[in-house]
Amino acid sequence: MRLGIDIGGTKTDAVALDATGRVVERVRMATGFGPDAVVEVACAVADRLAAALGDAVHPFDAVGVGVPGLVEPGTGRVQHAVNLGVSDLPLADLLSVRLGVAVTVENDVNAAALGAYHLLGEERSMGFLNLGTGLAAGIVVGGRLWRGARGAAGELGHLPVDPRGARCACGQVGCIETLASGSAVARMWPTSAELPAVDLFDRAERGEREAVEVRDRLADGVAAAVRALMLTADVDTVAIGGGLSNLGERLHREVAAALQRSAAHSAFLASLELPTRVRLVPPGTAIAAVGAALATDTEETVH
Amino acid sequence: MRLGIDIGGTKTDAVALDATGRVVERVRMATGFGPDAVVEVACAVADRLAAALGDAVHPFDAVGVGVPGLVEPGTGRVQHAVNLGVSDLPLADLLSVRLGVAVTVENDVNAAALGAYHLLGEERSMGFLNLGTGLAAGIVVGGRLWRGARGAAGELGHLPVDPRGARCACGQVGCIETLASGSAVARMWPTSAELPAVDLFDRAERGEREAVEVRDRLADGVAAAVRALMLTADVDTVAIGGGLSNLGERLHREVAAALQRSAAHSAFLASLELPTRVRLVPPGTAIAAVGAALATDTEETVH
Repeated sequence: MRLGIDIGGTKTDAVALDATGRVVERVRMATGFGPDAVVEVACAVADRLAAALGDAVHPFDAVGVGVPGLVEPGTGRVQHAVNLGVSDLPLADLLSVRLGVAVTVENDVNAAALGAYHLLGEERSMGFLNLGTGLAAGIVVGGRLWRGARGAAGELGHLPVDPRGARCACGQVGCIETLASGSAVARMWPTSAELPAVDLFDRAERGEREAVEVRDRLADGVAAAVRALMLTADVDTVAIGGGLSNLGERLHREVAAALQRSAAHSAFLASLELPTRVRLVPPGTAIAAVGAALATDTEETVH
Repeated sequence: MRLGIDIGGTKTDAVALDATGRVVERVRMATGFGPDAVVEVACAVADRLAAALGDAVHPFDAVGVGVPGLVEPGTGRVQHAVNLGVSDLPLADLLSVRLGVAVTVENDVNAAALGAYHLLGEERSMGFLNLGTGLAAGIVVGGRLWRGARGAAGELGHLPVDPRGARCACGQVGCIETLASGSAVARMWPTSAELPAVDLFDRAERGEREAVEVRDRLADGVAAAVRALMLTADVDTVAIGGGLSNLGERLHREVAAALQRSAAHSAFLASLELPTRVRLVPPGTAIAAVGAALATDTEETVH
């Protein structure tokens, strides 16, 4: 039995995977803030999962953890996980001692990419676009993560696509992230609505002109990210996940429309059939936790 | 002994490689136009190489050919090789019968990528940017070509980076190719000089303001292509080849400067140390012919 834990900024999501990779149990808890609380909550979800499975002791042969931060390859040391209140934490070592089993730590977007690949049944290559506060991608080939030379694979949110665009948090101008991310929605669609992206799509679907423009700009940004993946790595499919993917089919439809628009004057682009190669991660799916569990198999990563 | 033939728009370049991958002989001839002439010249360079090696019969166990066109995977059928006057030609089959040995046909940019990887001594991953009439890239990982799902890997010349840019031959607007290619130089720097790019760099180095602007735009375009490779696939190094790379260190220096400019306000980009990861293919090197010979090893390709 494998345990996968996704430690998010607000929730910690954990799953138990059987030998075939099937989710047999799932629990969620509020994430603790700061290094000690992060470790305690991770141990608590492990205890709860074991109890839910009817085991007095942990039945886990391997534990994988996904975190939103930089993870040192090999050691599982976590750095700059700002949302968790963690600046530098030997998370793999600490959890390994507490849980009595080997622990693998993985960046959360990479973990989600592995999980999406597994859950969507892709068998060749997949790019996973994480539309969260920021925009980043993970690439999985033949079931294994493609990390790149410096762990920067999939950082396509910071490819500039408009010299007259907005200043990006990274310091550049007009990055794809300034169009296609939660922070981009917050900037482009200031509102007191609790869910700004839902408000944006509601109003656009009611025909409000300004909302249609902003929604299209968002969709064009996601399409730019899809093209970056397809015209560089040429993955078989691109899966869209992250917070904004909770918009579901409404988002999927607009992204497909944006890809169609961009191919309207280009036979070359049209021949790649990009709209048909984009898939949506079903909202509510535990892809990051599942991927974290899968990342415990060292064969799942390359480079 | 392996034979590699690069059939270019004007010259056909051929090398004999020994078992260690070393070039032991090289010959060049003018390329013939049209299907029959293309096949005849390929056979002629094989004869000349055999003669230069002192062999009455062909000493080649395997033959690889690089062509500027679409190559059907598996069959080595060539389509849309406009510069060769070839619309549809079963090149691998025809040459195999004529030369009496298995023939592998590869797209020329992919062949050059393999050759650059080999000749520059890269051992992990490399993106090869071909600055020819157009702009395309090849990606090599652990000595094997990364083709992608539909043979579109490395087509990053057609990623748009400026909504107010020039119309691209592909039909889109503001593609990287409209900034960083021979056709981009022809459009941005109209001149009667025999070598427009050399004229451009000469004048820019003499301080002519308009030339400096156009040269910087070209270098910024190459930098955009480097970023696309680095922030998506995160290859270890990017090698710059193709016709414009004959500018040599003058080009290399400006591309490094452009990468430096783009990282000036971005600690994230600066941390990736892109300028130090760009290399120039030494002008005159037979990378495409060498790569074509290497492509005869089926282990050299993936996906």
